[in-house]
Amino acid sequence: MKISMHALSIDIFTQVLGNLSGILEKGAAHATAKKFDSGVLVVSRIAPDMLPLSKQIQIACDIAKNSAARLAGVEPPRFEDNEKTIEELRARIAKTVEYLKSIPAGALEGSEERDIKVPAGERTLEFKGLAFVQRWAIPNVFFHVTTAYNILRHNGVDIGKRDFLGNP
Amino acid sequence: MKISMHALSIDIFTQVLGNLSGILEKGAAHATAKKFDSGVLVVSRIAPDMLPLSKQIQIACDIAKNSAARLAGVEPPRFEDNEKTIEELRARIAKTVEYLKSIPAGALEGSEERDIKVPAGERTLEFKGLAFVQRWAIPNVFFHVTTAYNILRHNGVDIGKRDFLGNP
Repeated sequence: MKISMHALSIDIFTQVLGNLSGILEKGAAHATAKKFDSGVLVVSRIAPDMLPLSKQIQIACDIAKNSAARLAGVEPPRFEDNEKTIEELRARIAKTVEYLKSIPAGALEGSEERDIKVPAGERTLEFKGLAFVQRWAIPNVFFHVTTAYNILRHNGVDIGKRDFLGNP
Repeated sequence: MKISMHALSIDIFTQVLGNLSGILEKGAAHATAKKFDSGVLVVSRIAPDMLPLSKQIQIACDIAKNSAARLAGVEPPRFEDNEKTIEELRARIAKTVEYLKSIPAGALEGSEERDIKVPAGERTLEFKGLAFVQRWAIPNVFFHVTTAYNILRHNGVDIGKRDFLGNP
């Protein structure tokens, strides 16, 4: 195995998003077993002024997708944020992973030196490709996936770090 | 900037642990402003059967420290898990970062192919160095740092993703 920008971004994102999909599946099964509407989980939050589960997942997917596209120097597809159920959120993850896998590894070659601009509210952040992955893309994707995990865990879903890590 | 195993591990870990220290500082300031003992935050959890803040931070530090040492092929120092206050937890982070910075970048050269064994409960996980970082070290460190963030956020500490990202 070789270190590459692909290994540092797309490999990591497809792995953790796949694990997230498995975690969500356990969330849906928990709701069924406990006889409550799994939509309750979709709108749950860690704090009243934090984003709900649905948005955590949409952002995790978009940062993975858009970061990979920026590194490859291509325009990413836009996905609407219209998911209302766990099944729809899992489909969002699936199409994000499908997009990530469609990017050839060679497209990211040399992207460690690419100039990357990220709109962030009123500011525009500027990074070289490597720092962009280290300080923006990876932390952001893991932030939102872990927060999704914590929302489910806080609501009693029986998941553990092994699910988060994808049974390594 | 060059892609390297150092960039993929120690660079990322020192950055996020530094951000975590800043987040904890805001937690302590919040407790002072609201006139409660910040030790309440140290033992707070997202769910009754999840680990408290102190343990999230100790594990984040240890996984960063031990992963870097495994990649460098050296024996890491052992730090006792005896922190009871936010100040002590910030000191734990500081000595972890100091250790990470003491490892010369060259020590990780070629470690993407190194065989790494990780004791995990009754099992021993085996990875090549690159997969170890992608699937174990990075996900684990971010898992525990984000959970620490979520514990503080759940308890009303006024922090945002900009703090988590270290004001990028």
